[in-house]
Amino acid sequence: MEKLEMLYEGKAKRIYRTSDESTVWISYKDSATAFNGEKKAVIEGKGRLNNEISSLLFEMLAAEGIPSHFVTRLSETDQLVKKVSIVPIEVVVRNIAAGTLAKRLGLTEGEILPQTIVEFYYKNDELGDPLINDDHIAILNLATPDQLTEMREKALRVNDVLTSYFASKNVKLVDFKLEYGTDEKGQLLLADEISPDTCRLWDSETNEKLDKDVFRRDLGNLAAAYEKILERLGGVPCTK
Amino acid sequence: MEKLEMLYEGKAKRIYRTSDESTVWISYKDSATAFNGEKKAVIEGKGRLNNEISSLLFEMLAAEGIPSHFVTRLSETDQLVKKVSIVPIEVVVRNIAAGTLAKRLGLTEGEILPQTIVEFYYKNDELGDPLINDDHIAILNLATPDQLTEMREKALRVNDVLTSYFASKNVKLVDFKLEYGTDEKGQLLLADEISPDTCRLWDSETNEKLDKDVFRRDLGNLAAAYEKILERLGGVPCTK
Ligand SMILES: Nc1ncnc2c1ncn2[C@@H]1O[C@H](COP(=O)(O)OP(=O)(O)O)[C@@H](O)[C@H]1O
Ligand SMILES: Nc1ncnc2c1ncn2[C@@H]1O[C@H](COP(=O)(O)OP(=O)(O)O)[C@@H](O)[C@H]1O
Ligand SMILES: [Mg+2]
Ligand SMILES: [Mg+2]
Repeated sequence: MEKLEMLYEGKAKRIYRTSDESTVWISYKDSATAFNGEKKAVIEGKGRLNNEISSLLFEMLAAEGIPSHFVTRLSETDQLVKKVSIVPIEVVVRNIAAGTLAKRLGLTEGEILPQTIVEFYYKNDELGDPLINDDHIAILNLATPDQLTEMREKALRVNDVLTSYFASKNVKLVDFKLEYGTDEKGQLLLADEISPDTCRLWDSETNEKLDKDVFRRDLGNLAAAYEKILERLGGVPCTK
Repeated sequence: MEKLEMLYEGKAKRIYRTSDESTVWISYKDSATAFNGEKKAVIEGKGRLNNEISSLLFEMLAAEGIPSHFVTRLSETDQLVKKVSIVPIEVVVRNIAAGTLAKRLGLTEGEILPQTIVEFYYKNDELGDPLINDDHIAILNLATPDQLTEMREKALRVNDVLTSYFASKNVKLVDFKLEYGTDEKGQLLLADEISPDTCRLWDSETNEKLDKDVFRRDLGNLAAAYEKILERLGGVPCTK
């Protein structure tokens, strides 16, 4: 597989065209951003860590019968994935109160929610990724009601599998964000990444934060936290 | 009917106990507030105007088969209503983009929405009345899924009736907020008020704002705008 010209550069990844029309080459960057890009840093090793963790999780999900865009890991920082047209909705699943949910509803961070909840956010940096409801999605024409139902159900299934998987690695899955895309047949496919950038992951015993909140809240060494996650998932530790 | 001790003082109304357990006495105040109480003023005549308009609209809705808490107008500023236990959800219905919706989704104020939308906000001053989805409502235990469905359907029916009524008075119903409560039998009942404080109302030809945005945005004389609405609805003009 050949990496051709860059199609898109996002905050965390670069997407390249390949010689195969149906796939794209994703290269994970070392940049960390938070608060809609207001806070920025370069964290050496982050691209590698997220690529390894994301590859590992997509492979695990596939083994559990949950398909995604993931085709193969190409290198320490690169993945080959099926090209999709991204649905501009961030699907957030939450098991434990944290972050904006705790703030929005006046809950205590760490509170186990009485039920898992799903939220949709409009993936739009300019607007600050606002929370939206089904009616907003309809007027913005972001997805059909059937696609919404499908994304909600699929995200809950991902949550079930990820939660038990992480639990077996001594990690609490607090919440996470998914993105879906449609393939050339119009089928919804899990896309983007699943990593400590997009999940809140806490040590099961100590509640130590092992995710991007370490960066958002200046809690210590981000790469070290991600390295812990990679090690617990049985990934290859740092080569440097 | 006798007005007994005050049960609750809100930003726009005072609620009093009456000798009848099943009703409360609502007295509309002259105070105007916006931005969650940050902006405040006393506007002479506002209590009277909102009471007259709200009484008139609740009577009109009753005639159209839409029951509410409204029992009777008691005076220029007072109403007798059925006592309910307020569901802490603000049900917002929107026909035209304006205010926070336009800002949130990047729409142009005045844009006719491709479909009417319903939003739920958590009625909680401390949290700034945040937008919430059905899952938030479930974890906060604010209403049952059946009550949500019922509120949504009832609010859309209110919208149909109000929209044609206002249209016949040369007024565009841009959006509005409803509150529901449960009576002693647990039945959902339309409550609170329907007034230029809780509706966006624009002149059908000129788009002149005839609602609380006149106060929020310092567009002129609020009482004069509300007076126009009352007159168009055939209410008694100012006695002063
Ligand atoms: N399989 C895919 N095909 C096409 N685009 C994708 C795929 N997976 C993810 N993307 C998109 O790649 C872009 C780059 O990712 P990222 O750097 O995380 O961007 P962002 O700054 O939007 O978070 C995002 O718009 C993401 O939605
Ligand atoms: N029929 C009713 N029975 C009991 N309470 C009511 C009824 N109708 C409205 N209320 C409540 O009366 C309170 C006073 O109204 P308002 O001044 O508008 O309060 P707020 O500051 O919460 O907007 C509000 O909490 C409102 O929900
Ligand atoms: Mg991203
Ligand atoms: Mg009120």
